[in-house]
Order: sequence, then structure tokens, then C-alpha cells
Amino acid sequence: MRIVVQKFGGSSLSTVDHIRRVAERVAATRSLGPNVVVVVSAMGDTTDHLLGLMRALGTRVPPRELDALLATGEQVSTALLAAALQIIGCPARSFTGWQAGITTDRVAGKARIVAVDTARLRGALEAGWVPVVAGFQGISPDGDVTTLGRGGSDTTAVALAAVLQAEACEIFSDVEGVYTADPRVVSEARRIPIIAYDEMMEIAHLGAQVLQIRAVECAAMNGVTITARSTFTDGSGTRITSAEEMAKMRGGGFVESGAVARAVAHDRDVAKLALCGVPDRPGIAMRVFQALAERNVNVDMIIQSQSRDGKNDIAFTVAGDDLEAAREALEVVSAVVGADATLAAAGFGKVSLIGAGMASHPGVAGTMFAALAEEGINIDMISTSEIKISCLVEQGAIDRAVRSVHRAFGLDRPETGSA
Amino acid sequence: MRIVVQKFGGSSLSTVDHIRRVAERVAATRSLGPNVVVVVSAMGDTTDHLLGLMRALGTRVPPRELDALLATGEQVSTALLAAALQIIGCPARSFTGWQAGITTDRVAGKARIVAVDTARLRGALEAGWVPVVAGFQGISPDGDVTTLGRGGSDTTAVALAAVLQAEACEIFSDVEGVYTADPRVVSEARRIPIIAYDEMMEIAHLGAQVLQIRAVECAAMNGVTITARSTFTDGSGTRITSAEEMAKMRGGGFVESGAVARAVAHDRDVAKLALCGVPDRPGIAMRVFQALAERNVNVDMIIQSQSRDGKNDIAFTVAGDDLEAAREALEVVSAVVGADATLAAAGFGKVSLIGAGMASHPGVAGTMFAALAEEGINIDMISTSEIKISCLVEQGAIDRAVRSVHRAFGLDRPETGSA
Repeated sequence: MRIVVQKFGGSSLSTVDHIRRVAERVAATRSLGPNVVVVVSAMGDTTDHLLGLMRALGTRVPPRELDALLATGEQVSTALLAAALQIIGCPARSFTGWQAGITTDRVAGKARIVAVDTARLRGALEAGWVPVVAGFQGISPDGDVTTLGRGGSDTTAVALAAVLQAEACEIFSDVEGVYTADPRVVSEARRIPIIAYDEMMEIAHLGAQVLQIRAVECAAMNGVTITARSTFTDGSGTRITSAEEMAKMRGGGFVESGAVARAVAHDRDVAKLALCGVPDRPGIAMRVFQALAERNVNVDMIIQSQSRDGKNDIAFTVAGDDLEAAREALEVVSAVVGADATLAAAGFGKVSLIGAGMASHPGVAGTMFAALAEEGINIDMISTSEIKISCLVEQGAIDRAVRSVHRAFGLDRPETGSA
Repeated sequence: MRIVVQKFGGSSLSTVDHIRRVAERVAATRSLGPNVVVVVSAMGDTTDHLLGLMRALGTRVPPRELDALLATGEQVSTALLAAALQIIGCPARSFTGWQAGITTDRVAGKARIVAVDTARLRGALEAGWVPVVAGFQGISPDGDVTTLGRGGSDTTAVALAAVLQAEACEIFSDVEGVYTADPRVVSEARRIPIIAYDEMMEIAHLGAQVLQIRAVECAAMNGVTITARSTFTDGSGTRITSAEEMAKMRGGGFVESGAVARAVAHDRDVAKLALCGVPDRPGIAMRVFQALAERNVNVDMIIQSQSRDGKNDIAFTVAGDDLEAAREALEVVSAVVGADATLAAAGFGKVSLIGAGMASHPGVAGTMFAALAEEGINIDMISTSEIKISCLVEQGAIDRAVRSVHRAFGLDRPETGSA
């Protein structure tokens, strides 16, 4: 059975008119032959509206109830889109997360999909229906409604594409695909036609609004090629796939890989924390990161300084939202291990250059640092990987930082620049 | 285990502040000893808002999707109220219809509860939690979300009170209880302290906003005494119970029952239909009412005229909303049985006098017709039962009709008048 998964985000579903246009797009795909499985987010700003109601009740919101509340947003979209499809003559049925057989773990608000029982969806497809599935949600083994966290609808789409062995997984939004930088910041930014999972993961991780990182991870692990496209235009978008698939598309010839700068990504809301003067014993870093993990805080950059007088400093960054949880964890650990001080501050941003082969080409880092220095931007922390160089800078300098690095690597030129 | 079921309607939950006050009321009841199970409707005008979104898509809305859509309204209320309870220190958990084990039949939009599996709710009660259950909804044997129709949350409350053997079932709204007439129409209307199921059913059937008729039916069949109370005042409300229970409360003495006028009810939106000149053969009425039942149209008053020249007329009334479905049914039957004509018109209202012993006291009807005649109000159809006399009148005369009948039976006097 030929299956295409199409996922539509909140901005594609913000009004009844938009829902009608999405229905027409789905029906058009189906008329070309394949069965279509649709995954939807909540309409427009529904999630923010629901969140506002809950927060008006108090600050310590029970996570289980927040999940139960937020999950209704996607259910509204499924019912309306399934109805819109039926009204234009395309058989369709709505499915909540649990109706679609999506089981998650028990971590409210950030649940992970652990299994998908496709029996009901396959039954719907065999009956000739377009299943319209609520993204972002599932059900825990205890029968509680869970949500996958913001952007989790992308993950739902990739998971369904994987388990249904779909021939395509198209993620629609209001942008044309993945760009060399955020076009709102860099007017010369260009669409990238094809990009590897690992490169895309770095971009998503750094705040690009096109795709959630977890969805890209999930796609990479399951070999699902994603196409990021615009809902309301016919552009071909950006394919996110494996390096092997990219090589095949170039015609299979051998390429001596050099460092290729693909994109400049940024993240506006980063908090920096540090544990200063901790005894240089094994196991201290482990305690810090275990305490953070227990609070479901993701750590991004990590720097451990050289030991000095038998003591050292551990600094790291987290998302701005996680500052308080991280501060709490840090203070608990500090008291236990006897650190001299803890630091915690919001107000940072991160700019990153992404592309294959960064680590083996030292010139890349030098070009990036020079571009920032020319703009008078101070670099607070640096981290590098095989495919990324990131610099922590003050929040107010982010736009200038992105523009200067984008220019320095020639990403505004028709052919992707290389260093 | 002592259990009290408390149901709160949409007007009691229309804002975050209202939800907080409801939480305090629930917590106060629980602090007196009993376990509390809460049933909620959708917040304020949520249901109308959702309905508006669906209707904007088109006129032929798939009933399954409408149910999936509307059910989200109550889910929002459960999550917010469960959170509000937890925030004030009262352990609570939200439950959708399916999580609460409520199974219905497959009639989308007007589903009936066929079973309640209380395992999960009992588990929650044993854990010391207040279960907050979404009213108005359940799940069909196929795993589809169904709704019980407008006001179905009352039915959910009664069903839970029955299966959990609750000691009380309190239905809260923004009115103080059941009145001798709608206080918006009759300023002298008084609260009725106690009323029998059958009397209440007639009042509910005729458009009183306090309780849905199905909930009263369900209460009568299962011996659940309902108390209709106001959310935001401490009045004792109206008890709706069996005639036996009422006798017990009077002290068990024997009372020679006379006709006791209890209330004047009205319904503003009635449509009248007729099949004229049908052959006087057995089975014709059956066909008409089968065709209506197939379209889920409830018929109210029915009049079959005397046979004339081997033909007769069948006239009946339905809710204004059902006019088109009823007209369709009538035309199909008319073509089959060879009737001379069909009539279908909206624009009627119904005024009814309710109380035990009406049929055995012919003077009651005479007093009612005289009251209407004095106001110059024409009576279009009449129907009577053991506990009710109803007159169909033109829509514009409803208010005057209610006031004149209320006065004629002395219902504005401290002691309930009798005829």
C-alpha cells in the first residue's frame, strides 16, 4: 500500500478557510494515487490560549492536567479537518493520539513515543479513509493523556511514516523550507534544497522554526526522509535525508569532502550556569548532570575548566525556560559536593555555523571568530563538533552575529560557499 | 465508601475565577467527610464556539467529527478544575468520558450510556483523589468518541451517582432550583422545595433550563435523588425524587391526593407538522413515526383527527430544530401512502400546567383554557396526561400565556395552590 504522511502546523490551520485549503491539498495528493495519513497541530494560537487559562489558575500547574488540557487543541483540528475533507468528498476520519494507537512513556509534557499500534489506522486506510491524526499526543501505559512537548506533532508524523512504511513524510508550515539563516534576520538567506539529518539536527536544535530536533532524530534513526514544504505554495521545499541518500542523488560519484558551510542558526534564549570551585574528584560532573536529567532539563554547551589548586569550574548552558529548574538542581549539588559558588544567568544567545567537515578544517573556526570580532561581539563560550561551531554571545548581539557569519561564509551567494 | 456526585454546568465554569470558586465548593464538601466525584460541562459558550467553527465548514457536518470536536470542550473544563483543586491542596485527577469508563451506543450526537466500568474511578477514589469527569461524552463500542446531546452532562452525573451508589447527586447551575415558572417570564415565580420525578420530567421536557429530561428519566429509573442547587449561593435548592420518598418526608401520613398544580412550563420553539387526508388504514401512523425515529426526531404532541370519508389527518409537533428532518420524513411517507397534502410550520410555542392528578380533575383544564381565553390567546393543539395539560399557541403569545396560567392557579402565593 502506497502511503504519504502529511503534517500541517498550527499556522496552516489557523482559520476555517485555511483548514479548507489544507483539505484541498490533501485531497489533491490522494487523487494522484497514494493513501494519505494526515497529522495536525492545534489551530493557530490555541495552545497558547489554553496555556494562558491554566497559568491564570496558579504557578504550580499539575503536569498531568496540563497535558490533558493541551491535547484538546489538536483534537479540535482533527475533527475540523476530517469534516472539511468529507465535505469536499474525500472520506476521512479523525483520530486522537490514543485512538491512533500511540503509546508514550509517562513523562508529562515531554513524553516520548514508545510504541504505535497501527491496527486501527491500517483499518481506516483499508476502508479508503484518510486518517487525520492528532499530533503532539499519546497515551501512557496508565491510560493518561500525554503530550510530546512543543513541536511534537512533527515527531508524530515521522513516527507514523516509519511504522506505516510511508513513501514520503511531508511536513508543511508557512515557510518554503530550510534556509541558510532565518530570513527574518538575514534578508539574503536562501532555501537549502537538500540537507543531511545531522546538519538539520543542529539547525533545529538552534531554534529554526521549520522542524523540531526530536522529529529529525526520529527520522534519522528510522531512515525516514522528510520534506519540509510550504502549505500555500508549490515550492519543492527542503529534503532532509541521510548522507548516503544525498550521495545517491548526486549520481553516486566520489566527492573528496571538504568543509561546507550550510547554514547559520541561532537561539535567542539561552541561560548560562556554573558551579565554581568544585573539588577535582571523579563523579562530580556526573552528579550535576544527573540532577539536571531528573528535572528533565536538557544541557547544551558544557565547559569544564582546567584544574587549579585541586579545584575546577563547570559551566553549561540550558534553554532560557529551564533556568529555574537548572538553578535548583545546581544548588542541591553544590551543597552536597562543597562548591565555592554557583552562577545562573539568563540573557544569552547562541550563533552557530553548521556544515559537514568543520572539525578537520581549523580555518573555519578562525573565519567565524574573525567575523564576530569585526562586529565587536564578545564570545562568552565556544563549543565545536564535527558539523558545528557555536558561540555564546549576549542576547542583544544575536542579529548582528548571524548576519556577519552568514556573509563571511558567502551563504548569500547562489552556490553554497565553502571555507 | 460515602460518595457525593456534584455536577457543574457551563455558566458555573465560564471563567478561571468561576473555576476557582467551584474548586473551593468541591473542597468544602470533601472536608465534611464524603468522597466527591465531580462532573463538568464545557466552559461558558465553548460548545457554541466549536459548533460555529464546524458549521462554518459547511452544512452537512459528519456527526462523528462533530462529536469528536464538541467532546474537547468538557475535557478542557476537567483539566482546569482538576488543576484548580490540586492548587488549593485537594488531590484531584481529570478523566475524559472514555477514561471514566463510560460506554455509549453508536448514535453520534445523541448517544445513550449503555455501561459504566467504574474500576478506574474507584481506584482514583481509593487513592484519595477527587475524580473530575467530563460530562456529555462517552465512547462507542468501536472506540469512537460520542456525545450525549445537549445537557448530557446531567445524565453523566446521574449515571455515575447510580453506579457508584452515591448518597447524593447535586446538579449545580446559576439558578436556585426549580421554579413554579421561569422567573425571567414570571417575576412572582417561587422555588419548589421538592418535586416528583414525573412532574420534573414534564417541566424539563418543556424547556426548563435547570435539568435535562434524560437525566431525570435516568434518575427515576435508577432511584437517584437529584438536588438542583445554585453554584454561588447556599440555598437548599430543589430535591427531585420519587413519590414514595416525598411521602416519607411528609412523615408517612396518608394524603388523599387531589390535583396539585406545581408549575407552569413553556417551550418557545415548536414546529407543527401534519399529514392531511391519509387513507384510514392500519399502519400509517406507524410509518410516520418510524420514519421520524430513523432520523432521531422526537415527536411531542400527536393528534389524529376523526376519520372523514375514509381519510383522516395526523398532526404532531417537534422541536423547532428538528423541523427540516421531520419535513423530509413526512414527505417520504406522504409519497408512499398517498396523502392529500403535508404541512410543516415553525413559529409555535407550548405552555403547560404540571402537577399530580390532573386527569382526574376536569376542572383543571377548564380553568387553564379560561385563563388563556381571557388573554385572547388562541389554542392550536391540546394534549393532556395524568400530570400535565399542554396547549400549543403562537410563539408571540408565550409570555402572556405563562403569566396568565401561573396567576390562575395561584402559584405566586406562598402555599402551592390547588385546583
